[in-house]
Amino acid sequence: MAFRSLTKTIAFSRFSRSFSAASNLVRVEVSDKSGIATVTLQRAPVNSLNLEILADFKQSLKELEKNKCRGAILTSAFKTFSAGLDINEMYKPEIDRAKKWWTTLQDVYELLYGSSYPTVAFINGAAPAGGCLLSMCCEYRVMVPNSIIGLNETQLGIVAPAWFANTMENIIGKRQTELALTTGRLFSTEEAFKIGLIDEIVQGKEDGINRANAFFSKFSKISPFARNLSKQIVRGDTLKKMSKNRENDLNLFLQTISQDSVQKGLGFYIESLKKKQAT
Amino acid sequence: MAFRSLTKTIAFSRFSRSFSAASNLVRVEVSDKSGIATVTLQRAPVNSLNLEILADFKQSLKELEKNKCRGAILTSAFKTFSAGLDINEMYKPEIDRAKKWWTTLQDVYELLYGSSYPTVAFINGAAPAGGCLLSMCCEYRVMVPNSIIGLNETQLGIVAPAWFANTMENIIGKRQTELALTTGRLFSTEEAFKIGLIDEIVQGKEDGINRANAFFSKFSKISPFARNLSKQIVRGDTLKKMSKNRENDLNLFLQTISQDSVQKGLGFYIESLKKKQAT
Amino acid sequence: MAFRSLTKTIAFSRFSRSFSAASNLVRVEVSDKSGIATVTLQRAPVNSLNLEILADFKQSLKELEKNKCRGAILTSAFKTFSAGLDINEMYKPEIDRAKKWWTTLQDVYELLYGSSYPTVAFINGAAPAGGCLLSMCCEYRVMVPNSIIGLNETQLGIVAPAWFANTMENIIGKRQTELALTTGRLFSTEEAFKIGLIDEIVQGKEDGINRANAFFSKFSKISPFARNLSKQIVRGDTLKKMSKNRENDLNLFLQTISQDSVQKGLGFYIESLKKKQAT
Repeated sequence: MAFRSLTKTIAFSRFSRSFSAASNLVRVEVSDKSGIATVTLQRAPVNSLNLEILADFKQSLKELEKNKCRGAILTSAFKTFSAGLDINEMYKPEIDRAKKWWTTLQDVYELLYGSSYPTVAFINGAAPAGGCLLSMCCEYRVMVPNSIIGLNETQLGIVAPAWFANTMENIIGKRQTELALTTGRLFSTEEAFKIGLIDEIVQGKEDGINRANAFFSKFSKISPFARNLSKQIVRGDTLKKMSKNRENDLNLFLQTISQDSVQKGLGFYIESLKKKQAT
Repeated sequence: MAFRSLTKTIAFSRFSRSFSAASNLVRVEVSDKSGIATVTLQRAPVNSLNLEILADFKQSLKELEKNKCRGAILTSAFKTFSAGLDINEMYKPEIDRAKKWWTTLQDVYELLYGSSYPTVAFINGAAPAGGCLLSMCCEYRVMVPNSIIGLNETQLGIVAPAWFANTMENIIGKRQTELALTTGRLFSTEEAFKIGLIDEIVQGKEDGINRANAFFSKFSKISPFARNLSKQIVRGDTLKKMSKNRENDLNLFLQTISQDSVQKGLGFYIESLKKKQAT
Repeated sequence: MAFRSLTKTIAFSRFSRSFSAASNLVRVEVSDKSGIATVTLQRAPVNSLNLEILADFKQSLKELEKNKCRGAILTSAFKTFSAGLDINEMYKPEIDRAKKWWTTLQDVYELLYGSSYPTVAFINGAAPAGGCLLSMCCEYRVMVPNSIIGLNETQLGIVAPAWFANTMENIIGKRQTELALTTGRLFSTEEAFKIGLIDEIVQGKEDGINRANAFFSKFSKISPFARNLSKQIVRGDTLKKMSKNRENDLNLFLQTISQDSVQKGLGFYIESLKKKQAT
């Protein structure tokens, strides 16, 4: 198995030096030498996750999977890793687009959390809410100092779905997850390191990429087939639960955003963001 | 949502300054200013959990839930937090009362572990067995020094039910729970803090209440609706498992106490307690 | 209950000073004084787990269970605790023997992980892969310095089954298990201690046996019945999952070793072992 996978990996490292999906909101560069892909989120200014960037991300992840990627680094083109879900997709939504948006988020989660290849999040800036989720889907997290990360949904009057919570529980345990979610806590880089939410603190981009590659090098003599099966064994229950619950999860989301009180709250929040930007 | 809940909270803080349930074994005081309830167990001398105190506790918890309590501190009127389940309810029991006692305990668990409002246990003295369980149902635990806490059932020849064990696992993990349960370990305050079974060590009542309020203040800008949903997501599996298993759990309990060997053991234990009190 | 069990324990401590199963690959010695059994794996040179040693182990565990053993120490007659599963059982296997081998491994797991009596692994040397599993089935692990332990299956191009992974998760949590399994990490004794994979580092045999006895002494005043029920409550979900999945697990194993690529990989590995031994 190891041998067949290696052949495929070589084919892949020749595949393409760089590609972008339709809307150019996610850039993928593959090193010919290492076969490692760098996946850069680049929806200005803060990688808010709207339908278009999620669709691009999904397409990129599918191509990486198809081409037996040897490893992927997830990072941002900006000073913010990702500000999380784009709240505009929830405010006065067109129902068909809202459905598509949410199911694309589910797809991205399943592709990233269940990827056959190793993944590292180089968290080069703030990673609240959905930004935190994307980084938690990776197998390893390195992060720059003096930044923030966490599932702070309750601070905005909304709720991180069960699969966000389960993903955090798998990293820092049930006790810390409950405290983090109910208080909507944003951890500083240093706090996140102490609690195990991130694995290393890195000094800038070069250090970040080096530490990511150090993680990938742990697999240099490991059969990709055996590696992936082991990952699926550990993550399988969480992925199966999510997969079985997709329809319910979508309905719960649609039901939530159809409530007047939620729309009112989101409206206030969007107004406050506009005022902030105006000053 | 946040807005609707706030209105209700204001209504609640006007609701009542103090109330007690039928038998006066649980006192509830609600601060007009903060809307925080203090729930004091007061069955002399050590808050042994018999049917009457559990029935009062259940009624108090239902009223707090109905009135959208903003937060509750659970504590004791005595130097012992709670000595746990009253062993007299298990010794030569009248079957109907035993059934009612156990189901009331199940009710109290579901109401306290699943409460919509935040809860802090101010553990102002020893909390063995059922006393430990009550504190573990809260979201946060502060405890006075030089005391003890733990599920020590095996020391008495009895067994903490699966839901006691699951509740402990959710706080300190499976590994530590197995060691604690099989050895019937009572942790000192300091050991409990180190292992994460309690969150803070406090110096007396004023400090305890202050730390509890510091915990509640984390939610001052959080939508109670979103907060509660997040809690239900994290605790949901444990609560659902318990709820589905109530009937089996009751039968297992009744079966256990119907055994001669258990009755004999309880008899010896009650005798030894009487001798202790006599000296 | 406690009383009945004690009577049986006394009967057992008279039972036999020493016995060995059919092929003499596992030696069991029971102390008349303490009632504690020492179970020594003795298939030279490194306790590779082939069908015969597993069959002996299974028989020994059944006898210990039947005779209400008070406690068992699992250790090795050699400088290696156990090198793990015997790879020769997977390489060009005779199908009936392969089936019998795997189901015997499943039996050993269920008997050891679910034993009614307390168990300590005195890990007196390297415990990779299946050797690590056996030690993880025990309730307590003490280990000599400067050795190694871990589920390193992926390093050999194979995969630790789900029940190996679950057993590790129950000790060190999901996050650390994923890292350990995907990288096939062998922990040094010191690293294993730090992460909680072992409980104590001991200086040689005398110290190891002393620490094991110190663990057993925690149960000197505990009802064996209540102790065992508590253990079954904590380990029950993992055991039930394994038990329900035995057939699937066997088929997955047979399917895996029937693949050309796996056979090729195992062939290379066996050749490399032969070369090592030749030099």
